[in-house]
Amino acid sequence: RPRRTLNEVLFFPTETACVEHIFTSRSSDTCLCLLAHGVESSFTRLLRHILSASSSLDLCIFAFSHMDLSRAVCMLHRRGVTVRVIVDKDYVAITGSQIGVLRKAGICVRRSVGSVFMHHKFAVVDRRLLITGSLNWTLSAVQGNMENILVTEEPDLVKPFIKEFHNLWAHNDPA
Amino acid sequence: RPRRTLNEVLFFPTETACVEHIFTSRSSDTCLCLLAHGVESSFTRLLRHILSASSSLDLCIFAFSHMDLSRAVCMLHRRGVTVRVIVDKDYVAITGSQIGVLRKAGICVRRSVGSVFMHHKFAVVDRRLLITGSLNWTLSAVQGNMENILVTEEPDLVKPFIKEFHNLWAHNDPA
Ligand SMILES: [Zn+2]
Ligand SMILES: [Zn+2]
Repeated sequence: RPRRTLNEVLFFPTETACVEHIFTSRSSDTCLCLLAHGVESSFTRLLRHILSASSSLDLCIFAFSHMDLSRAVCMLHRRGVTVRVIVDKDYVAITGSQIGVLRKAGICVRRSVGSVFMHHKFAVVDRRLLITGSLNWTLSAVQGNMENILVTEEPDLVKPFIKEFHNLWAHNDPA
Repeated sequence: RPRRTLNEVLFFPTETACVEHIFTSRSSDTCLCLLAHGVESSFTRLLRHILSASSSLDLCIFAFSHMDLSRAVCMLHRRGVTVRVIVDKDYVAITGSQIGVLRKAGICVRRSVGSVFMHHKFAVVDRRLLITGSLNWTLSAVQGNMENILVTEEPDLVKPFIKEFHNLWAHNDPA
């Protein structure tokens, strides 16, 4: 029987919990930090979907200041996954912005051009899995706001985003 | 053969064009306004999906100032469609906010409670069709920003949003 097409919805805010085990693949029993352990949340689901990338991650994100998400993207880059990031040219400079961190790690980042907002918040994993919604990659969005993310492998939804990323990558500013 | 499940992606900004024919079902040949006519765009697609409601429209929107979208929602209400709207308590007061217009038309509106943003931008039509994405219902989002909207009938995606709306409606402020 063929595997069913993945379709999942994640809602935020989500409870705060340790995510160390997701990065290290060690058991969360061994972590000594003060956060809750063994909690599966919308945020751990999001992290796992991002970290499932084996060949490419195309990320188009209005605001990016969340350190665990930055850690996940840098980890993929170190693993040899091709990571491309498009950000809004104004919001690249928000407090705690991780864009400088990504660039220092050697990841290709392009800034939107023009006077309007690049308001997308989507990622495409391995040209197969779409992650999109209202959620910016910031701590207030993940832990504070009411937000949603859709995760889908449905080709009719994924393909237009692959094409849109291709167009935005070509037309935006490598500088 | 069963009808295929609708899955559609709309990108913005979109070209500015007359939408009068969508509201009046008259031919756009008869309109005398100065905008382009006969143009099918992401925005006309969005309007048509909203206006396809025959029994209910549940709308959960961070910012709502777009007059054509307000006109569509009011038209549904007049047709007897059950319309419920949840808005962010702070963004209810943005310039050109349509929330007062909806209330005056007799539509039930609830404001989010608490100190965080109600950052969703989704609508569920007839408990069947989900419209969600990065796009707020404002003129700058529709005509300026780079934005996306997904439109889907996939039950695995629609059902969680129906449940989320139900929860938000119950927990937010009718005042
Ligand atoms: Zn820990
Ligand atoms: Zn006209």
